[in-house]
Amino acid sequence: MLRTHTCGELRINNVTQTVTISGWVQGVRDKGSLLWIDLRDRYGITQITIETENAVKDIVDTARSLGREFVISVTGKVVERYSKSDKLETGEIEITPDKIVVLNSSITPPFTIEDSTDGGDDIRMKYRYLDLRRNPVRQNLELRHRMAIETRLFLDKLNFLEVETPVLIKSTPEGARDFVVPSRMNQGEFYALPQSPQTFKQLLMVGGFDRYYQIVKCFRDEDLRADRQPEFTQIDCEMAFVEQEDILNTFEGLIRHLFKSVKGIDIPELTRMTYADAMKFYGNDKPDIRFEMKFVELNGVVKGRNFKVFDDARLVVGICAKGAAEYSRKQLDELTEFVKRPQIGATGLVYARYNTDGTIKSSVDKFYTEEEVKKWAVAFDAQPGDLMLIMAGEENKTRKALSELRLEMGNRLGLRDKNTFACHWVIDFPLLEWNEEAQRFFAMHHPFTSPKPEDIALLNSDQVGKVRANAYDMVINGVEVGGGSIRIFNKQLQSQLFDLLGFTKEEAQAQFGFLMNAFEFGAPPHGGIAFGFDRLCSLFGGAEVIRDFIAFPKNNSGRDVMIDSPSPIAQAQLTELGIDLKKN
Amino acid sequence: MLRTHTCGELRINNVTQTVTISGWVQGVRDKGSLLWIDLRDRYGITQITIETENAVKDIVDTARSLGREFVISVTGKVVERYSKSDKLETGEIEITPDKIVVLNSSITPPFTIEDSTDGGDDIRMKYRYLDLRRNPVRQNLELRHRMAIETRLFLDKLNFLEVETPVLIKSTPEGARDFVVPSRMNQGEFYALPQSPQTFKQLLMVGGFDRYYQIVKCFRDEDLRADRQPEFTQIDCEMAFVEQEDILNTFEGLIRHLFKSVKGIDIPELTRMTYADAMKFYGNDKPDIRFEMKFVELNGVVKGRNFKVFDDARLVVGICAKGAAEYSRKQLDELTEFVKRPQIGATGLVYARYNTDGTIKSSVDKFYTEEEVKKWAVAFDAQPGDLMLIMAGEENKTRKALSELRLEMGNRLGLRDKNTFACHWVIDFPLLEWNEEAQRFFAMHHPFTSPKPEDIALLNSDQVGKVRANAYDMVINGVEVGGGSIRIFNKQLQSQLFDLLGFTKEEAQAQFGFLMNAFEFGAPPHGGIAFGFDRLCSLFGGAEVIRDFIAFPKNNSGRDVMIDSPSPIAQAQLTELGIDLKKN
Repeated sequence: MLRTHTCGELRINNVTQTVTISGWVQGVRDKGSLLWIDLRDRYGITQITIETENAVKDIVDTARSLGREFVISVTGKVVERYSKSDKLETGEIEITPDKIVVLNSSITPPFTIEDSTDGGDDIRMKYRYLDLRRNPVRQNLELRHRMAIETRLFLDKLNFLEVETPVLIKSTPEGARDFVVPSRMNQGEFYALPQSPQTFKQLLMVGGFDRYYQIVKCFRDEDLRADRQPEFTQIDCEMAFVEQEDILNTFEGLIRHLFKSVKGIDIPELTRMTYADAMKFYGNDKPDIRFEMKFVELNGVVKGRNFKVFDDARLVVGICAKGAAEYSRKQLDELTEFVKRPQIGATGLVYARYNTDGTIKSSVDKFYTEEEVKKWAVAFDAQPGDLMLIMAGEENKTRKALSELRLEMGNRLGLRDKNTFACHWVIDFPLLEWNEEAQRFFAMHHPFTSPKPEDIALLNSDQVGKVRANAYDMVINGVEVGGGSIRIFNKQLQSQLFDLLGFTKEEAQAQFGFLMNAFEFGAPPHGGIAFGFDRLCSLFGGAEVIRDFIAFPKNNSGRDVMIDSPSPIAQAQLTELGIDLKKN
Repeated sequence: MLRTHTCGELRINNVTQTVTISGWVQGVRDKGSLLWIDLRDRYGITQITIETENAVKDIVDTARSLGREFVISVTGKVVERYSKSDKLETGEIEITPDKIVVLNSSITPPFTIEDSTDGGDDIRMKYRYLDLRRNPVRQNLELRHRMAIETRLFLDKLNFLEVETPVLIKSTPEGARDFVVPSRMNQGEFYALPQSPQTFKQLLMVGGFDRYYQIVKCFRDEDLRADRQPEFTQIDCEMAFVEQEDILNTFEGLIRHLFKSVKGIDIPELTRMTYADAMKFYGNDKPDIRFEMKFVELNGVVKGRNFKVFDDARLVVGICAKGAAEYSRKQLDELTEFVKRPQIGATGLVYARYNTDGTIKSSVDKFYTEEEVKKWAVAFDAQPGDLMLIMAGEENKTRKALSELRLEMGNRLGLRDKNTFACHWVIDFPLLEWNEEAQRFFAMHHPFTSPKPEDIALLNSDQVGKVRANAYDMVINGVEVGGGSIRIFNKQLQSQLFDLLGFTKEEAQAQFGFLMNAFEFGAPPHGGIAFGFDRLCSLFGGAEVIRDFIAFPKNNSGRDVMIDSPSPIAQAQLTELGIDLKKN
């Protein structure tokens, strides 16, 4: 037996027991007559204390030979500490060793195994197995485990069945790029890895499964932006015989259960906001509602004063930053620079300070009297001490830019505390999105999303772009953590949608024929949702980077630098698969 | 709201309630004045009864228009049945409908949606979504869900963490063929899909994770034998700071928990058998011990009587089939044919009947007197009424053939009841297996398996083939449901093993360098096990075919006939990936 207890387990009531613990040497402190070893495992740290003059020579010699990250097993008696530590849960005891066995040695790690390490990102990725020994990384994965367990318990209680859907499926050109897998037994043919189990979960509904979920790996061969992974995990769910209301209630329940069981936080019932309102008041389909600072449209109060920027603009819109009137010129310049960055691309920023003495000072005093600017303040419902920030231009672009500024102001004013959670639904998304480049509509969610029944009549009209979908996103702190829709379950309507999306009958049949055929055999009304599990975990963990919540992540080039993958394969393998590398 | 209750939920105490239920039309019986609809969902069947003369015409018309598998929603009052049915859990009630809504129609399914269907395998695979509606198929997947939930609960309580390991990894030529995934961003390079998370779980142990599990998809590009799937699921586990004993105890606990919680069966503590004994007494490394019928070696009592078959044989060995002495000549001929089949390849079978009157009659009376054959009976511990079956030849081949005969006799004598479960461990497997063709040793388990410490000295001797491993299989009813080993955690020993297995230093470094490097930084002693989850579920379900326990299985050519995958992909996709199809 290599251990009777873990390194995090012993307490004052274990005193006088003889125990064996095993772990890694966190450090050795040698004061000559006294020598301490901090022994670490996943559960904690226990101190081993050796009085060198009274101890067996072997033990002292072994202890003095130890280096950081050596693996040892220690048998000895638990004794009460002379000077207790309240930093460790085991801080009331220590162990007087009778035996120390070196199970394995270690060369010096390339970075320190401490909560705050000296290792940079790249070296920690290469030696991920060492990074995993650090508390913060392990705790992230413990949180992830707990989230998965609680998700399953909650859904199991509601009669959801976890069903594994296949990983080797079929490539479909709609959506992002597929990873493909050449078939050796069917040369010239390929499997694809799923971007989501979408069609399979719908087939499960056709198959009468009623309530399905799966915590499942999905794959997208995209040019990776920061913090995207080629393989990622979803909590994927589907229900039959439901309307949108049933789904919102069920998964609102899930998220509240997760907050309660994992973090001990009571989340109030989720509010709902239409996509139209989200864009109008926040310029963003996933607004962070930890703070208000809603958009206020000013066209009615700013036009016709010969200020060309406002007069020419389709939209003049602003936000009111509470208590920021005393922002310095430098701070205001920073904000102007912020919105002018190429990622945001605004041409400028107008501000008006509502000073605490009741006066108002704007950056466009040349064009507007104080009386006129007071009308802005009324529109903003601004109070003395507030700062009004205003942008103008083309409608969508201006809203997007102002949304970025709003979030930036939220950060600057400390309104986006990562330990505060504001969860809500955004509903009534448009069904379709016009793509200028391709000169056709794309599905905003995916081609299986149902239009709202009351909007179906518009599908054959020139108002098709206004058709709303029974689609919804769950948003927490400005992050879209999940999204879904009520699905089409009628072959004719599905076929009509494929037409609208520019599929020929043949393409639709070749790619989704199995689904449309299935719809002929009594498909029930159904809908579902999928949560980005990596993202949800990082949000619960109060972190921004999903990579920290994945045991073995890939870097931004889709490469696993620890195992050095992808990598070349043998010519014999290529030959067996019936493929060649393209010659350049 | 599309339903207030499921079709399996209503009971006598719901009588007088107005409810809405939704589901599929199992059947309509129209007796003129009375009309019944059986409405089915995942939870059961509820009868809708319409008195056609008293009912609204609309309802009668709708009911008469319904076909099998139409999807309807019925609102009505729960009433007590006049003639109750004890075949249905809802058999005490029926519903008098106020409203019937047809949610979807159905064309006639290609096979009946009944427990016993008229559909053959191929058609049911193609329309899997319809097969999933059948109770037996759904119940298999419900069992699978329950097994997964209970596995996780058990391991979670023991502080195991479920950690997701990557699916896009690196190809390694050792073992079965990998499926590979061409990388678009790193052209000419490939990911591989994991045959198991072996190296990653070992790295988790190096990373201090201590107790890991995962229910995880694995992939093998093998020529599929019956009942193999290119993608399959494992319960994959690993523990650090353990010896073999700890692992056996932990996972014996898991399997007993599963039997108890899922099937309500108390399984006794698992017995253990060495590989050597398994081969000696059963000719099989996964003996079915639901019945005895152990091998008895007869070299000592049969040689030297001028029966050339026995005299020339390396091994004469037999089994004693209790109570089978009255087997007819025809039955005995069948057994001889059975062992002569090419899959078994024996040249013949000798038998001796120990008749109930105490006489003994053998098929080799020409060579052996009754007195001599009585000595065989003593060796077999045979009783009057028993049948002795004896084979002879080269040692391994004869044992294997006799093992098949033993299992066949077990079947014929009704000793292999699928509702009886005999679980045990086979331990002390050989570390290496000599491959005649390749003229080198292969790892019997995998290259990371630790030799038994007491046998390590033999590694550099000509006795290397005798080195035993700390490897173990869990066997239930003659099926290997799980296997694992204590791993090497020392770089030098791992390196020595790679040498023995014919890896050059460069190959070992290129393929497993990351693992051997990891071993330099304080790798703890560790070991683990993996269970074949599909197989385990089929065993619990009392079935032989794992395909029935997979929602969307592939056929024996690795093809999903429902979605028609694998399939060709567009030339543009190939071009992006930098690969070409090989021209023939």
